Amino acid sequence: MDRIQQLVKDMLAGHRLSLARLISKVENRDNDVASILQSIYPHTGRAQVWGITGPPGAGKSTLVDRIAVHLRGLNKRVAIVAVDPSSPFSGGAILGDRIRMQQHSGDIGVYIRSLGTRGKHGGLSHATKEVVMVLDAAGFDVILVETAGVGQTELEILRLAQTVLVVLVPESGDSIQVMKAGLMEIADVFTVNKCDRPEADKLVRELVTMVGMGAHDEHSWMIPVKKTEALRDLGVAELIESINAHQEYLMHSGAREKKAREFLKNEVADILTERLSQTLMQAFETSSGKDLLEDLFMRRVDPYQAADIISNV
Amino acid sequence: MDRIQQLVKDMLAGHRLSLARLISKVENRDNDVASILQSIYPHTGRAQVWGITGPPGAGKSTLVDRIAVHLRGLNKRVAIVAVDPSSPFSGGAILGDRIRMQQHSGDIGVYIRSLGTRGKHGGLSHATKEVVMVLDAAGFDVILVETAGVGQTELEILRLAQTVLVVLVPESGDSIQVMKAGLMEIADVFTVNKCDRPEADKLVRELVTMVGMGAHDEHSWMIPVKKTEALRDLGVAELIESINAHQEYLMHSGAREKKAREFLKNEVADILTERLSQTLMQAFETSSGKDLLEDLFMRRVDPYQAADIISNV
Repeated sequence: MDRIQQLVKDMLAGHRLSLARLISKVENRDNDVASILQSIYPHTGRAQVWGITGPPGAGKSTLVDRIAVHLRGLNKRVAIVAVDPSSPFSGGAILGDRIRMQQHSGDIGVYIRSLGTRGKHGGLSHATKEVVMVLDAAGFDVILVETAGVGQTELEILRLAQTVLVVLVPESGDSIQVMKAGLMEIADVFTVNKCDRPEADKLVRELVTMVGMGAHDEHSWMIPVKKTEALRDLGVAELIESINAHQEYLMHSGAREKKAREFLKNEVADILTERLSQTLMQAFETSSGKDLLEDLFMRRVDPYQAADIISNV
Repeated sequence: MDRIQQLVKDMLAGHRLSLARLISKVENRDNDVASILQSIYPHTGRAQVWGITGPPGAGKSTLVDRIAVHLRGLNKRVAIVAVDPSSPFSGGAILGDRIRMQQHSGDIGVYIRSLGTRGKHGGLSHATKEVVMVLDAAGFDVILVETAGVGQTELEILRLAQTVLVVLVPESGDSIQVMKAGLMEIADVFTVNKCDRPEADKLVRELVTMVGMGAHDEHSWMIPVKKTEALRDLGVAELIESINAHQEYLMHSGAREKKAREFLKNEVADILTERLSQTLMQAFETSSGKDLLEDLFMRRVDPYQAADIISNV
């Protein structure tokens, strides 16, 4: 048994340090990523993946922590993956992780990990998807993926979730802005957080109207609009019931299986795209690559021939 | 001789309609793109490519037209490629083209073409680069590539230019905003257009100071800051002199050759990226692709194996 297989075996047996090391390798795009994913893949496909997004200041982290506590009460094993593409240091979130871990301290059933920006375009969403697969294999029942904002990378990341919860606060704008930000398209459940604030009920009413206007029939999912006050733990249990209802809807309607297939297609696409960019980075650095560039420059070879040559190496 | 070779032969002989048809095929990513590029490639590498960018309302189009008229006076054959990634209809610019063409009407030495947004990410910059290669092969001495704004697509497009002219007006903001917009990094020449307006001299002075602060030695290019009033044809001849000086600098310093090699590397990368996205679009649509997806879903094959299978088809 090689080193990676041993790490995976230990991780599957519940060894925390092995899990952390495997995740770091995946995050850093280590050379072992392919063999890690190949070893864990047969153990994936069981976890529920919930995406949580919303504007800065909506109280996402507090709400996510509350949800984790409730799920622990239901005896579920919970992993939290916090993704911030704009953070230049993935390590920068470690302090935050430690503070967040304290309230779950000693609880082997909760695992928290932050992922930050990655140099390569598209690298963060691919790494995040594969980290989620590792956590799935590790036996977590629910994986909460928390993203800041709704840029391209965040939308890509949210595609890995079966259920997307959009967290809003009255201050984050009215329903028109919610629509403009594309949140309507990705939300499976809305919650208006900090619902003790004035204007909260107004936003709830607007969202209910907006959701009602969306085209739907008796078989489609009607997006629920919930109210929470994460700090005082109000409405969180009801919110989780709505998310569970969505998971059941996915199961009955066949949508969960469809989403899983889409996820797998995207994972294969990500693997091939990553390989191509590695090939291209190295292609013109070798001595034969330098000769090829000279042939291109001298018009002895055209770019389409060069592409054939590189892809056949 | 096949159909494409005949079109290319006619285009090389100066036939305008053949040129227009070849450009349309390249723009629309026709199946013949590879053979078109292979046929024209030996005839490329001679044209000067000037990129012209700047904020909306800076008077870029008027200035580009003036530059074309001056270059015609120097007996240069000129092509203008106007790129607007935000325009949803490439055809939407045709009326503008016709109006612009009128002032060069009957002049076989000027060719104007607009390119609009393309569905696929990265598609527009690749198509634009290849359109420029066709125009290069067609024997135009100077190709003016005009882009709106400085988004990711525009920056990608400007990489194909040997010389980038950034057009500013006093209303477009002060020098700090210019720096923030990343214009400092891409400019080889600045011009303050509509220089009859108040505040124009202030912007010129700020730009001169900013350029002077940039690290440079006696061998590096010192970005000139020019003043133009395109509508009244003021300063345009002097601006062209500055651009010519940059082209001479590129030639003497070896930078032109270096840029040409970078351009070729990018072209090969674009070809391979485009091929990959086509492969991926089709990969899961065939009957063997559907079987593969089923194997993935059932965990009989892992995503890295599936990637190998797809890339070996």
